[in-house]
Amino acid sequence: MSAPLVPPPPVTVVDISPAGDTLRILDQTRLPGEECYLELRDIGRMVEAIRSLRVRGAPAIGVAAGCGMAVLGYHGAIAARVGADFDAILMESADDLRRTRPTAVNLARAVDRVLAAGMIRDAREPYAVRARRMRDEAIAIRDEDRAMCDAIGRHGATFVRDGMRVLTHCNAGALATAGIGTALAPIYVAHARGQQVHVWADETRPLLQGARLTAWELQRAGVPVTVCSDGMAATLMREGAVDLVIVGADRIAANGDVANKIGTYGVAVAARHHGIPFVVAAPRTTIDRHCASGHAIRIEQRSPDELRRLGDRLVIPEAVPVHNPAFDVTPFPLVTAIVTDVGVHHPPYDFRDFPT
Amino acid sequence: MSAPLVPPPPVTVVDISPAGDTLRILDQTRLPGEECYLELRDIGRMVEAIRSLRVRGAPAIGVAAGCGMAVLGYHGAIAARVGADFDAILMESADDLRRTRPTAVNLARAVDRVLAAGMIRDAREPYAVRARRMRDEAIAIRDEDRAMCDAIGRHGATFVRDGMRVLTHCNAGALATAGIGTALAPIYVAHARGQQVHVWADETRPLLQGARLTAWELQRAGVPVTVCSDGMAATLMREGAVDLVIVGADRIAANGDVANKIGTYGVAVAARHHGIPFVVAAPRTTIDRHCASGHAIRIEQRSPDELRRLGDRLVIPEAVPVHNPAFDVTPFPLVTAIVTDVGVHHPPYDFRDFPT
Repeated sequence: MSAPLVPPPPVTVVDISPAGDTLRILDQTRLPGEECYLELRDIGRMVEAIRSLRVRGAPAIGVAAGCGMAVLGYHGAIAARVGADFDAILMESADDLRRTRPTAVNLARAVDRVLAAGMIRDAREPYAVRARRMRDEAIAIRDEDRAMCDAIGRHGATFVRDGMRVLTHCNAGALATAGIGTALAPIYVAHARGQQVHVWADETRPLLQGARLTAWELQRAGVPVTVCSDGMAATLMREGAVDLVIVGADRIAANGDVANKIGTYGVAVAARHHGIPFVVAAPRTTIDRHCASGHAIRIEQRSPDELRRLGDRLVIPEAVPVHNPAFDVTPFPLVTAIVTDVGVHHPPYDFRDFPT
Repeated sequence: MSAPLVPPPPVTVVDISPAGDTLRILDQTRLPGEECYLELRDIGRMVEAIRSLRVRGAPAIGVAAGCGMAVLGYHGAIAARVGADFDAILMESADDLRRTRPTAVNLARAVDRVLAAGMIRDAREPYAVRARRMRDEAIAIRDEDRAMCDAIGRHGATFVRDGMRVLTHCNAGALATAGIGTALAPIYVAHARGQQVHVWADETRPLLQGARLTAWELQRAGVPVTVCSDGMAATLMREGAVDLVIVGADRIAANGDVANKIGTYGVAVAARHHGIPFVVAAPRTTIDRHCASGHAIRIEQRSPDELRRLGDRLVIPEAVPVHNPAFDVTPFPLVTAIVTDVGVHHPPYDFRDFPT
């Protein structure tokens, strides 16, 4: 048996330079109009980039923060040679990075790992040695993320057959990771193996991640993709134009309930009505074994302006309230399978003892 | 038993002045930001207003064209006194109006009715007499439309109970008619009877009629309304926040299949999944007894730019195809009841002998 073929990521979303002196990220706020890369060397611009969602997706944010921390170590080591306080620089930078997205677990974990690698181990070791350990740790985080994506892709590709039309919602693709993505990873793997796959990308209101990001990265990778509005998904299923649904997850409860971008649940209901498999693909770190069910997941309400305004234009009267939850919960009975980097999980789901 | 209370329309969308010299329409392209009324007296501006969707909704377009035709008769009669050819003016105007929206049956019918009223009946009758008959016919068309809305409202209100949360998609409201609307008519009637009704308005991508129009007119009428994105409807149902769905229809087949704005079918599937009644409310003229089922309804594909661009901003890469059907078909088994101005139709639907 030959090793399964896994393609390279279609785009480098986040990386650290070989010397360790520069964090390089793709500015996703300028997609799909412009493909623009930022080279970041100071904490101020890193904080701004993460906070402004220039880099987004929990895995990609984690890698960006880890690599950013290492870059700050590189420049801190140079400053320390002329008297700056290396440890103080590291601690402050770590605090600043952690505060950019306080609920992003991956981010805090990556910052802590790279910070720990920079701690002094020998009273006489030069700052540059400590900075190099930080760089190596950041590269390890990046490579683990890529491997995680590859594993999801290999496991998930078992659901994809030649000629399939796959519908996805939001963006859980390469743009959300340092690798080939999570929900889109099985599609990239199937495509690399020579299977014909066509993707329907829901535009995903209100922030249009499907239109702006999923369409862009699939097209760049040469995977056929067509964008539809969220309200078209059910009709496409009724017309027999959808064979499989794959979506990502923001959090998976111990019973298999899945929190993901708002709109996912409606897609799951429509898939069930039409007898179409509904597969969730996400890193194993998304599984929260301490969360018993979806009822325990608090759903963030976002600004009404995401729906009320299109650019400068008011599309909902100021006096009318707007409901804008960021996520919804799809209950486990609607989920055909959950794919993680450790394998395919079938119902009945029980993640209470799942290693995290 | 006292007569059922039916409220006045919350806004005058289209009307003719008492003298018959002016067509007055609310410019819906400027909603919800501005409430601006156009006073139209010549064919050029009328054609532009209808073609640019300043007035929209099949019933409202019909009334606008009928009233417009009468106004042209008024000014034609004055011109004829100084030698213009009254009949030629009428025929040309009728042709111009019919061509603005060639598939709008109501429009052609209204133009023909008002034109016929203006035909000479007595060799010696003055032009002004003919113009007055045209005005009276236009007013009759307007009043029939109002009565149609009132009847739908009375019949449909039997589905609405005090405290209900009603979800609707797109705009089949007062803004689409000369009266209190079709899908929203039962809500206006229930509200006028003192029942507490809360409306969820799907924003309705791509053209946002729910956000821009439904929210505006309900708020103006004092009916509590909250806007949500199309992808939130299923989750609202799962949370127990929706008791009833009422939508309009663009065409109803003899077997009860319903063509309506894209996104309606997904709402119907979600309503069925959650055991929520799904009611269609539309004028009897929407029923096409010669159309056996939804399979016979051709669905218009609209410009990809409706999804590809938000104002000046490109949100889907130019190279990526976009699927943008204007309507979808909800098969009759998902439709709890069909309300028209002649009553409530229950399954099994059979409109093969329905009078049109």
